Amino acid sequence: MFKILHIGLGPLGKIIVSDLAMRGIGVITQAVDIDPAIIGKPLSSVVPECGFACTIRSSIAEAVSAAGGVKNFDAALLTTSSDLARCMPSLRELANLGMPVVSTCEELLYPWLRHQNLADELHALCLNSGARMLGTGVNPGFLMDTLPVALTAVCRNVRSVRIARIQDATTRRIPFQQKIGAGLDDAAFAAKVKEGTLRHVGLGESLHFVSRYLGLNVDRWEETIEPVKADRDLSCGLGPIPKGRAAGVRQVAMGWAKGAAPSADPVIQLEFQAAIAQADPRDEINLDADPPIKMIIPGAVHGDVATSAITLNAVPAIINAKPGLHTMATVPMVHFVPR
Amino acid sequence: MFKILHIGLGPLGKIIVSDLAMRGIGVITQAVDIDPAIIGKPLSSVVPECGFACTIRSSIAEAVSAAGGVKNFDAALLTTSSDLARCMPSLRELANLGMPVVSTCEELLYPWLRHQNLADELHALCLNSGARMLGTGVNPGFLMDTLPVALTAVCRNVRSVRIARIQDATTRRIPFQQKIGAGLDDAAFAAKVKEGTLRHVGLGESLHFVSRYLGLNVDRWEETIEPVKADRDLSCGLGPIPKGRAAGVRQVAMGWAKGAAPSADPVIQLEFQAAIAQADPRDEINLDADPPIKMIIPGAVHGDVATSAITLNAVPAIINAKPGLHTMATVPMVHFVPR
Repeated sequence: MFKILHIGLGPLGKIIVSDLAMRGIGVITQAVDIDPAIIGKPLSSVVPECGFACTIRSSIAEAVSAAGGVKNFDAALLTTSSDLARCMPSLRELANLGMPVVSTCEELLYPWLRHQNLADELHALCLNSGARMLGTGVNPGFLMDTLPVALTAVCRNVRSVRIARIQDATTRRIPFQQKIGAGLDDAAFAAKVKEGTLRHVGLGESLHFVSRYLGLNVDRWEETIEPVKADRDLSCGLGPIPKGRAAGVRQVAMGWAKGAAPSADPVIQLEFQAAIAQADPRDEINLDADPPIKMIIPGAVHGDVATSAITLNAVPAIINAKPGLHTMATVPMVHFVPR
Repeated sequence: MFKILHIGLGPLGKIIVSDLAMRGIGVITQAVDIDPAIIGKPLSSVVPECGFACTIRSSIAEAVSAAGGVKNFDAALLTTSSDLARCMPSLRELANLGMPVVSTCEELLYPWLRHQNLADELHALCLNSGARMLGTGVNPGFLMDTLPVALTAVCRNVRSVRIARIQDATTRRIPFQQKIGAGLDDAAFAAKVKEGTLRHVGLGESLHFVSRYLGLNVDRWEETIEPVKADRDLSCGLGPIPKGRAAGVRQVAMGWAKGAAPSADPVIQLEFQAAIAQADPRDEINLDADPPIKMIIPGAVHGDVATSAITLNAVPAIINAKPGLHTMATVPMVHFVPR
């Protein structure tokens, strides 16, 4: 039974707390959030089914003090923001405490892409204190980065990589349908792209993770985002989608190897597509490699429970890792943790 | 560039030496074999394309002495036998020397199944000296054990696992076609099964690896082996296969959870099938899990180069592992190692 310090009780944090209780593999012994409306209340008042009685604290320091010190935790989980800069105060504090930390912060999957200095700082703090840190999730964190890199274990050469995650959003939750822009006209879709609320965060992190571990030397990359147009009248949880409106989103990241000609094919291509009534949903990996490998997960892995699952499954891996800032490629294998 | 001590220059050992040179990621600085016909000759006389000039030695002790001590190696590779008991004198010696070791010994993939005492002994020696050891390969070692367990990273529950490796042997090397019994009549097939030369080694190890890491509590298991009969006249590299003769082999391992009723479905089922003119060749994994996952590699991973590839790809993982006897689930991720 892992004794967990949990930080961040937003929607994903609540699912993780609930899953931990349901799975019977650990206990949240301290919880932290910044929302004044829940600070001071028992965790079970926010996640009723969890049965964890600890009081929600306003700071990590307060939680550690209430627990009687960091020695009374096995690990910390941080589920506060996709943005590494916003997570840094908490991560610094946890690093200085010498704790094993798993976070769902998307940018932490491969922090060297956008935050080289912060990554270097965290790594140095971890080496100094014995802490270790890992960013994970289903995507980014597994399907478009960890899994394709893991498949190359049997390859003696890898020339290029194509990865696709194609999801049918018809049966997904309404917030997911909203997030992918279902039902929007061109102007509204473009506005949401511009304000940054429609974009899937992490494609660039996945691309650079793959490049780094397979030695594909990407030094130029780009990302495109466009609506998937409804080719007939559709409907979804949000209401009807007239033909020609957005049924969802298609986002593509491409990376070129150092020295590649401007017209060269990308050495890594990642396609993320999620739409109402999407045909042939699947996770697909194509390795132009020796031996060549094509892998398909028909239907695509259902994302709603997967991010919570992998976050909890990563706890033993980070506990058993060496001190430092880690990635999914440097910790012992993350797999389902049985009771 | 890894500096490697290589032990065992049979067919697989030679491929590994050749691949290491071709990939440019390391150098065999010392090589060991027991064959008097090659001892004392340069390694490049046995593997001409490798260009490694070291003299083939008759013992590990001699090789270590010639190298000026273990500090001059990054890791050792052992490719001598499928049988852990036969590998033990070498493994003991390497463990006492404190070396990182990767071996293709099939039984070392999960040594606790058939050799609990030897596994305990090796682990204790490693903890004492700082050595670490890993058994790997494409199968056992990846497709029917490591990969299915890695896929469960995104699962919050796993109820049962079915894994199939279905290979079309038509275009494979003649020794492989011989090994799977192509062309044999029932009596000859049965005789080869009885003498143990037809059996795929490692299905039991894969099954218990999966059970261990997914907590499936297998305490009863069985393995069946039978010919795949040619349903029409066929031909292969060995010659014609009349209808009714063996086109190949089908081997199935099943495991039941502790306390399961005698008539219960197995909690783990592994199907290994390789035959001439085999339809729908593929690697397939079915996880009865939450979320459920079905994964297919159409055509199946071609095994000839894959075992050499994964052995070399495991070198950085075992170097970065903690002291002890490891499995593919306890070392950092094994992936293609770029130059």
